[in-house]
Order: sequence, then structure tokens, then C-alpha cells
Amino acid sequence: MVETDINQRAAKLFRDTQKNYCTALEKIDGRGTFITDSWDRTNLNNGAKEGGGITRIMSDGKTFERAGVNFSEVYGIMEPFLVEKLIGVRSPHEFFATGISLVVHPLSPMIPTTHANCRFLQIGDFSWFGGGADLTPYYLFEEDACHFHTELKAVCDKFDPFYYEKFKKWCDEYFFLPHRKEARGIGGIFFDYLGKEDGVDSLNKYFLFVEALCEKLSELYLPVVKKRQQEPWSTKEKDFQLLRRGRYVEFNLLHDRGTHFGLQTNGRIESIFMSLPPIVKWEYNSSFEDGSLESKLIDVLKQPRDWINKK
Amino acid sequence: MVETDINQRAAKLFRDTQKNYCTALEKIDGRGTFITDSWDRTNLNNGAKEGGGITRIMSDGKTFERAGVNFSEVYGIMEPFLVEKLIGVRSPHEFFATGISLVVHPLSPMIPTTHANCRFLQIGDFSWFGGGADLTPYYLFEEDACHFHTELKAVCDKFDPFYYEKFKKWCDEYFFLPHRKEARGIGGIFFDYLGKEDGVDSLNKYFLFVEALCEKLSELYLPVVKKRQQEPWSTKEKDFQLLRRGRYVEFNLLHDRGTHFGLQTNGRIESIFMSLPPIVKWEYNSSFEDGSLESKLIDVLKQPRDWINKK
Repeated sequence: MVETDINQRAAKLFRDTQKNYCTALEKIDGRGTFITDSWDRTNLNNGAKEGGGITRIMSDGKTFERAGVNFSEVYGIMEPFLVEKLIGVRSPHEFFATGISLVVHPLSPMIPTTHANCRFLQIGDFSWFGGGADLTPYYLFEEDACHFHTELKAVCDKFDPFYYEKFKKWCDEYFFLPHRKEARGIGGIFFDYLGKEDGVDSLNKYFLFVEALCEKLSELYLPVVKKRQQEPWSTKEKDFQLLRRGRYVEFNLLHDRGTHFGLQTNGRIESIFMSLPPIVKWEYNSSFEDGSLESKLIDVLKQPRDWINKK
Repeated sequence: MVETDINQRAAKLFRDTQKNYCTALEKIDGRGTFITDSWDRTNLNNGAKEGGGITRIMSDGKTFERAGVNFSEVYGIMEPFLVEKLIGVRSPHEFFATGISLVVHPLSPMIPTTHANCRFLQIGDFSWFGGGADLTPYYLFEEDACHFHTELKAVCDKFDPFYYEKFKKWCDEYFFLPHRKEARGIGGIFFDYLGKEDGVDSLNKYFLFVEALCEKLSELYLPVVKKRQQEPWSTKEKDFQLLRRGRYVEFNLLHDRGTHFGLQTNGRIESIFMSLPPIVKWEYNSSFEDGSLESKLIDVLKQPRDWINKK
């Protein structure tokens, strides 16, 4: 089943991206360092090694309260119910999956959280890329949202003039909490199944797109961090961040497909849950004054916006 | 469809239980008081009232960091996909549901969290009771677990000699986090579908059982609270409680049927999520010394125990 070359190129790209992104975060943090945990994935029945990964975590940095960057490369036989969800056939299939996933939770509520993920999957005769990047501010600086989206659009436009619009919409739809009637953040891009229907020859084109996104990840986010590192904040703003982190947890546990995929494929729990914030609050019926910065953020999350043309 | 009398008797029982339980918690807390929010449930299409509920919350009590006791009585047309899950027929059906649900998160890590829920459902020609009560300690006092289970067994034994064993096992199986390979706590009882297959005449028998459980709820838990209120603790123990609360959130968002039922039936979000703890931590790869109290608790959660005969 395996078109080995693209498999290995994708895995190498994600491994390199992990390394570069961690180096860039350490540099901007100035104090925190990443620890590295390599792990094997073993077959529950026979103990055979079926891939593994490298989890890197920074805790209690000066800027980043927690940053997790996970690389994985796993393979084996996928359960029929999962195969059915992915390719519509209900029988066990060989699979190969490699990906990078990162979530950064800054200490300061003035710096947004970011998440990104790129992945390559092979199941039976199907292969495809998926991924995306999105931003979750607590206090909104519109120019940061504009920067993030403008950079993403630049990556997209080099490959297809319709990508940005399509993938931004997909992102707005995906990172949505129906029970809160709110988006998780101000979006970004989200895509999946790139190459799934096009056959193996097309995969190289999509590889180049995903590679361009991986190379752009730190430029999307780090200028925002730099700009907001000096913004003052107090316990009031921190408390709001902790409450909003509750929404992050709700999304990841109730809706996130990556989390569910990890749990359903015997993934490494600590690596799956590294996306959860270090400290979180839930408050009964929290409310904020009309016109306050907190209310303004929540209003923005109710309706997707065009961040580039500021509509 | 509606056998009005049992409907209303169940709703009254749950309303009275809410009142009594809140009074008992206020008394033992000594400082905290419950606020009361009455809410209506409205049809999303035509705005008609379809029941509602009373949510009562204590925040920042002396003993209880958060205690939520929710009563609800809702009705309307249930979506086919939910009807199918409950009675195996995929078409919209009238339903009526009433229940009480409570979760108590003490400030002190030496006092366990408790949860209980009793409910009555009618869908089409089917009616049944469900419910249960369980205990989630952070630092384990075996005599507390024994007390909790002994009291539950006494309620069960009055009605059926097989209830306790059956419902304890159901509880152990239900409150289990497969990804952690851990129970949420030391269990209790859990039951569902009581009367569903027996016809309407049997419901009175099950009503009496649920009534006996409701009347026992404060005796199950408050003696434990009283006994542990004076136990000393420091930030070390508090931190462990915050981490274990993370497991509570994981269970409620990933697995709890009540939470999912609430979200899928347009329930009131703030009432559904009142079960979530006020402050929670997630730590990457947390570990505890062999033989420590923290390790001992985790070991206990790996394997269900007979708490009455201490096997």
C-alpha cells in the first residue's frame, strides 16, 4: 500500500518543523526550554512496535506557560469503525499516519494561544494531507488577527487562488462550539483530504503546500508574541484567560477530531492531552459588562469575520 | 402518552430533594449560600415553552468551593437520532424527562467530591427511572468509602437483594476513563431503564426505590464531610486535587451521557456545566512516588474493590 517516498518526506518535514519551531519558541521565551520525550507505540495484542513519536514540552517559561509540540509517525491495522469514518469501508485496513501538532499557551492573557497541525495519512489505497493553523486571543488586537490571516493567505495564494477562502471557511466551521454558539478563536485555515481523490501522483503538489505552511508557522505567530509581550495585565485579565481556556478544553474534549482519533487509536495520552492548558477555570454564568474588552471578544467570536479586508 | 401521576410525583420528589439537599449543605458549610436560577426551556423553532428547571449553585463556601444542584422537568419532541439510542426506533417522539443532578466540589482535598443523579424519562410508550450516586476522593480514607457503600447497600437491599451488587458493578463500569485505565472515583451505584420493559404498572415500585435513594443522599455524604472538615492540608494536596479534577472534566466531557444528553437536547449550558470544577490543572506526565498517598489513590482506581467486605 505504501508510497514510501512521500511517507518519509512528510515525516521528515514534520520532524524538522518540530525542531525549528521549538528553537524559535525557546529563543523568544528567553528562559523556558523544551524537554524531549521519545515514545514508542506498541500493538496492544502482541507488543510489536508500531511507530512512535517525539513529544516536546516547555513548562513555566517566561512567556509561555505551556507549549507542546508533538511529532508522531504511527502505523498498524486500523479498526473497522475508524476506517469506515475515513474511507467508507467497514473492514480493518493497514494505515500509516505522520503529523506535527502544536499548541502554545502563553502566560500573559494579552498574547493569544495558537494551534497548528499538519498530517499525512495513508489507509489502503488512499493517501492525503490535512492540517491548518488558528489563533485564539483572549484580548483582541485586530492587527494581530489581520497579520495572522494575511500571512496564511500568502501561503495559500502561491498554490491556489481559492485555497484561502475555502480553508478559512472550513476553519471557522470546524473550530466552533455549538453549545456556546461561539468560535474557539478568530480562526485561520483548516483543510483535509488533500489528494485523497486525486491519486498518488497529485500528492507531491500537496506536499509542497503543506511544506510551505510548516515553514511559515513561526512567522504567523512569533511577531504577535513579540508585539504583545510588554502589554501590561492584572489578575482580572488573567482570570478572563483562565475562563476562556475552559472553552478550549470544551472544544478539545467534546469536538476535536485529532483528540478523538488519538484516543481511538491507542495514542499516547500525555501527548494527546499536552494541548490542554495548565490551569483552567469554570465559573457559573460568567458575564461581562457591555462594551468591555471581554464582551467585545465574545461578540467577535459569534460571527466569522473577514480579517484581511476588515469587514 | 403520559401517565401523568407518576410524572408529577417524580418531578415533586426531585424538586423536594433539591431543596432538602441544598439546606443540608448550607448548614454544614456554615458560610456559603445557594443562589437560585429558574430557567425556561424554549422550542428553538417556535419559541414555545417546553419545561425548564431550577439551578442552585453555591460558590466559595467555607467547605464547598462549588456545589451545584440542578432540577429539571422538560418535554417536547425528541430528535430521531436520540430516540433511536433510547428505544431503538428512528423517528421523532414525544418525550418527558425530569431529574435531579448534583455535584459537590469541596475546597479541601481531604473531602471527596460527590455526584448523584436521579431521573425519570418517558418516550413514546416507554417510561423508566435511572440514577445513582458516587464518590470521588482525592486522598482516600477507606472508612469513608465503606460508609458510602454500606449506606447505598442498605437502600438497595430494602428493595431487591441483587440491586446493590448489580448497580455497583454498573457504576464501576460506567465511571471509567478507558484512556487513563482508571475509574473516576471509588464508585457507588448506577442504574438505568428501571421499569422500561415492565410496563407502566411496575413504575410505582421503582419510584419507591428512587425515593429511598433521594432521601438517603445527604446521609451518604455529609457524615464524610463532617469527619474530614478538620483534616489539615497544604498546597501539595490542593495541587493533587486540581490535577485529579482534570480527570473529572475529562470524564464529563468525553464520556458522560448526562452531559451529552443535555447538549443534544438544547439543555441549559450553565446548568449542564455546573458539574465542572471551579479550578482545574493539567500537568504533562505527572507522576508520584511509589507508596505516596497520591500513588495509593491511583492504584485503588485501577481495580474495582468490594468496599463493604474490604476485599
